[in-house]
Amino acid sequence: MPAHNPTYGIIGLGLIGGSLAKDLARKGHAGSVIGHDANPLHQERASQLHMVDRTGSLDEVVASADVIVLAIPVDAIMRVLPIVLDKAAPHQVVVEVGSTKVKLLDHIGQHPKRRQLVSAHPMAGTEYTGPDAAVYHLFDKKCCVICEPEKSDPEKKERVKSLFERLGMYVIEMGKDEHDLHAAYVSHISHITSFALAKTVLEKEKDEARIFEMASGGFSSTVRLAKSAPSMWAPIFVQNKENVLDVLNAHIAQLTYFKHCLEREDYNALHTWMGQANEIRKIIK
Amino acid sequence: MPAHNPTYGIIGLGLIGGSLAKDLARKGHAGSVIGHDANPLHQERASQLHMVDRTGSLDEVVASADVIVLAIPVDAIMRVLPIVLDKAAPHQVVVEVGSTKVKLLDHIGQHPKRRQLVSAHPMAGTEYTGPDAAVYHLFDKKCCVICEPEKSDPEKKERVKSLFERLGMYVIEMGKDEHDLHAAYVSHISHITSFALAKTVLEKEKDEARIFEMASGGFSSTVRLAKSAPSMWAPIFVQNKENVLDVLNAHIAQLTYFKHCLEREDYNALHTWMGQANEIRKIIK
Repeated sequence: MPAHNPTYGIIGLGLIGGSLAKDLARKGHAGSVIGHDANPLHQERASQLHMVDRTGSLDEVVASADVIVLAIPVDAIMRVLPIVLDKAAPHQVVVEVGSTKVKLLDHIGQHPKRRQLVSAHPMAGTEYTGPDAAVYHLFDKKCCVICEPEKSDPEKKERVKSLFERLGMYVIEMGKDEHDLHAAYVSHISHITSFALAKTVLEKEKDEARIFEMASGGFSSTVRLAKSAPSMWAPIFVQNKENVLDVLNAHIAQLTYFKHCLEREDYNALHTWMGQANEIRKIIK
Repeated sequence: MPAHNPTYGIIGLGLIGGSLAKDLARKGHAGSVIGHDANPLHQERASQLHMVDRTGSLDEVVASADVIVLAIPVDAIMRVLPIVLDKAAPHQVVVEVGSTKVKLLDHIGQHPKRRQLVSAHPMAGTEYTGPDAAVYHLFDKKCCVICEPEKSDPEKKERVKSLFERLGMYVIEMGKDEHDLHAAYVSHISHITSFALAKTVLEKEKDEARIFEMASGGFSSTVRLAKSAPSMWAPIFVQNKENVLDVLNAHIAQLTYFKHCLEREDYNALHTWMGQANEIRKIIK
């Protein structure tokens, strides 16, 4: 680890990359932050917002940074990560922060510089996208998963763990299969139900113009994730297809069971089912 | 309308009735507030919390109040509302604030004192229940629907409208059928998807103890309504059964469509579907 504060290179200046840049600058962790975004408008906007010290091409970022962070959609990580690893000098750490891991880590598993890569998933976000979505404190008190920690160089893994801890995160480690299964249950399915709920109500609205006058806080809460970007989420769902289909089938089975209970006005069954769902209290405060 | 500030009688001292009592006292609208809860523990707790000026039996509340508010589950309203209307003197206003209207208003439609009743649905709430769930400002900037306004005495309806406006609500009027249809889409289905999501994930947790270490803000947001009380929600779903089944079938159809798109990894269809869901941005900020 260099004696000076490291230079961070952030590839992807959206919600995650941008928020990371802002917190690194605020906390004085970074010697400097250099950023790149494949979308020139986003890169320009990140400059305007003084989110990074300077911007440059992908090659410039990779050449300048001690720690290179890939904060781009998971399909783009599949393409860009091998290129970045190819160019990485031995002292450089490469971090990818994608939401799915199995496909990517299988794809990159045999890369000769695999040990310079730390695979992390900071479980933080909002339904917004792009440089203007970047906020301070996004990562505070959230969970960060480091996947396949044993495949990374121990010193590099500790540096990345320490980085996320300094952003306020608690870091846990797990295998890639376990990560993708859990992510399907506690993140991916929530997005699917929100998208589906939004579609359901919007289609009804075509005939019922007044329907949203009554939209309440409960509705907003369950549907807000439906504002999330298709370009980020389509590749996540496809890369985690098997787990997502399993949880989606289980979810549809729950809805179908509720429907049958309601059709026969079975109060006992409805009470039992909802009472069991109430147990979620022990998980979320 | 009496020259003095009216005495309010609140039947049901839970989330809605308790919050109403608190705001009435805070805003100085009420001469006094007298409360009753069929659950003696809740009634005692409301006294301890100084939520009302005094408590009493149902008969005492009905005998003392200028404005009587029924803030109890919709199955209880079906039983209690006819009793209260039977006893009501001509100057008294009776307000029921249930979440479903067709069954109740059909049931009570021929009551000789129907014009003393104002049927309202203040669209405000949280996932919590009972006197301790009552909070100030619950109704602020929320929508209140008055149903079948033409069936109420105009002076009494205006008094109730003015009451909810002074609590910070915007009041709209609609027929009972339209209300129940819209409520199914913007409130009831959100609760069903939350209950089902909680059940889906809790059942998986039996085998995967670590699953909730990763639960993020998005998960909490979509699942929080699953903490809601079965005793409140089972009667709502049953009373609004036909609309709830319609919206539930539409929602399951959306999930099934998504599933088919994902099974064949149809990026175009997934993008289009999520892009359409993004239109919910125009509704919720």
